[in-house]
Amino acid sequence: MTTLQEAVPADLLALDAHDPLAHKRAEFLLPEGLIYLDGNSLGALPAHVPARLAQVAGQQWGEQLIRSWTGGTEEGRDWMTLPDRVAAKIARLIGAQPHQVAVGDSTSVNLFKLLSAALALNPGRRVILTDADNFPTDLYVAQGLNALLDGRYELRRVATNELAAALSDEVAVLLLTQVDYRSGARHDLAAMTRSAQAHGILTVWDLAHSAGAFEVELDAAGADFALGCGYKFLNGGPGAPSFLYVAERHLEAAPVYLSGWMGHADPFEMARDYAPAPGARRFVVGTPSILNLAALDAALEVFEGVDMQQVRAKSLALSRTFIGWMQPLTLRFPLHLLTPLDEDRRGSQVAYRHPQASEVMRRLTLAGVIGDFRTPDILRFGLTPLYLSHAEMWRAVQVIRQVLEAGV
Amino acid sequence: MTTLQEAVPADLLALDAHDPLAHKRAEFLLPEGLIYLDGNSLGALPAHVPARLAQVAGQQWGEQLIRSWTGGTEEGRDWMTLPDRVAAKIARLIGAQPHQVAVGDSTSVNLFKLLSAALALNPGRRVILTDADNFPTDLYVAQGLNALLDGRYELRRVATNELAAALSDEVAVLLLTQVDYRSGARHDLAAMTRSAQAHGILTVWDLAHSAGAFEVELDAAGADFALGCGYKFLNGGPGAPSFLYVAERHLEAAPVYLSGWMGHADPFEMARDYAPAPGARRFVVGTPSILNLAALDAALEVFEGVDMQQVRAKSLALSRTFIGWMQPLTLRFPLHLLTPLDEDRRGSQVAYRHPQASEVMRRLTLAGVIGDFRTPDILRFGLTPLYLSHAEMWRAVQVIRQVLEAGV
Repeated sequence: MTTLQEAVPADLLALDAHDPLAHKRAEFLLPEGLIYLDGNSLGALPAHVPARLAQVAGQQWGEQLIRSWTGGTEEGRDWMTLPDRVAAKIARLIGAQPHQVAVGDSTSVNLFKLLSAALALNPGRRVILTDADNFPTDLYVAQGLNALLDGRYELRRVATNELAAALSDEVAVLLLTQVDYRSGARHDLAAMTRSAQAHGILTVWDLAHSAGAFEVELDAAGADFALGCGYKFLNGGPGAPSFLYVAERHLEAAPVYLSGWMGHADPFEMARDYAPAPGARRFVVGTPSILNLAALDAALEVFEGVDMQQVRAKSLALSRTFIGWMQPLTLRFPLHLLTPLDEDRRGSQVAYRHPQASEVMRRLTLAGVIGDFRTPDILRFGLTPLYLSHAEMWRAVQVIRQVLEAGV
Repeated sequence: MTTLQEAVPADLLALDAHDPLAHKRAEFLLPEGLIYLDGNSLGALPAHVPARLAQVAGQQWGEQLIRSWTGGTEEGRDWMTLPDRVAAKIARLIGAQPHQVAVGDSTSVNLFKLLSAALALNPGRRVILTDADNFPTDLYVAQGLNALLDGRYELRRVATNELAAALSDEVAVLLLTQVDYRSGARHDLAAMTRSAQAHGILTVWDLAHSAGAFEVELDAAGADFALGCGYKFLNGGPGAPSFLYVAERHLEAAPVYLSGWMGHADPFEMARDYAPAPGARRFVVGTPSILNLAALDAALEVFEGVDMQQVRAKSLALSRTFIGWMQPLTLRFPLHLLTPLDEDRRGSQVAYRHPQASEVMRRLTLAGVIGDFRTPDILRFGLTPLYLSHAEMWRAVQVIRQVLEAGV
């Protein structure tokens, strides 16, 4: 861990003292002394999750057994509706109504559902437009789906700054991750949605690095489809279920191609033909992963009463502190800031290029500052407003300085 | 719970005394006095699962955080390879090699992967043949996939006893669940596979009620594809990850249409194009659900050293006891045995029709005997060899008798 003798500057201590989210730190279990700048990869453990898991395993599974599928919600063991209850909690964080959100499966699988549905709603067009720097699994899912559809689509991957110009009436679907997983650059979701729709394009937004990190207003933005990750800023645990969103106007028309019994209108009717459940619940497929889902449900309680605009304000303040204190290091070392200085274009992470990024990150981790290395040369620092302080930003920079001064 | 004064017959006590699997009961947590005949819906809780969950959540997630993805297996926290380690455990139970098995996602999603791959390997044929009584989600998945493929296939659903005659060179894929979820009737997997293959048909076997219930020999049977459920006889917990199997000869050729980063040859290379991982690992899609996967991994430890032929022998012995003691009741009450008397054709459950089956099961549950009601009129009793005794079979029948005598 760090061995810093220097005192945290007073202005940063003052920022922390006036932080309206400071009390949230106590709702997470984090090892003493560790500075965890990787909540955009795996969110930290909310303190009450272990007890919930123990209760779900020991009591709901162990004692109530099969009865927990249809037990009353008043008894807290109603697994059939657990996906819907988690969906309702996430809906508030992404500016949606509960019935527009479904929870379950992985982000990749949910993208398959939404992309296949969106393409069907825009027949006659043959281009899927995406960012060349989109997260790889998004590209792989599009490739796999296209292969299944006999390659009838073109996956058009263009540079971020050429996306606007690439919008055209050839494009069926614009598939974008709102915040770039490497640079942390953030798309203006509402503006890009409007531009796309002006060309008759449907939008599928990947909110992996958005949900829980700042306010997202899908309904207000008129977004068509969206999906996101449960284990980054939502802190749902490793491989937590993903969520998806479908705009009201598409809910009835969007086809469900991954159709399973848990998205059926009446699962226990055991009907021979698929009939979709009302709302986005139809996009639930197989039996929900209850342990992961319960962990996510418990984790989302830390957002109760939290104002997402406050979260955003703190995220920007943290990144301001971090970038500001890092700035002198970029003059002394081969560090190149990748993240936009324009705050409107910034997500909740800060990234730098460094020629020995992998080794630098290895040493930072040993020194108690955990971020991510991303190929080929990127140091990525996730800034989670619910459990980080300005003092930690400053301490992290001191550790980075020590590691760089020691030479890599 | 039950209030039986009568003594268990001596011959049943003798069977229990000589049961080579009797010691396994102590490896499960089951409420005192409850007779749990629903392990084919949700397997009981293996005793060491809660501690594993607490360790994974508290230590691996809470303390090691992101480092658990690539920590060493010697430290027990190597989430990246956890799906492969669980696959290896399941492989032994289904007569497969570890690299032919992948674990993750739900049974429904895994069926989508395998059915789409199998259809691609049999081009030119346009019929998916299945049992009209197949589990609904299997039918729904086939319907959804076919809709995505513009309805080019016919989902041909025929009665069980007409399946053999329906095999023809029109059929691309035979999709069957080995054990019928209602009647408990079991297909001869090897014989049906051979018959199908004689017509150039590829087989996709759903082993939901097979894996962990009796010996399955996929490689020996020459099966093409198979998949199954982690939460029934494998006791992996509610919504446990599913497994899938691909025959050696199809591994390289079978296309992966649900392609995600965790099935990529090098996930952290973050390559722009999908390239499949070696073996069945390519069928892993998104980030694995670690909590559910760890529970399944721990649950599978109860199978260590267990001879699946002993499991089968005990399963049949239990069903023999149960059916034998139930027989007099079928003469006095409107109970009709659905399960085949031919033991080769029996899975590990026994089912009866009863006109008030739903109400009968409700009362049985209140009386401490838990089975399942299945629409429209079926009482289903799952017989899990690892934690049930002949004495419990007898006690269950006494409770059923009492409930029926009291009138419904």
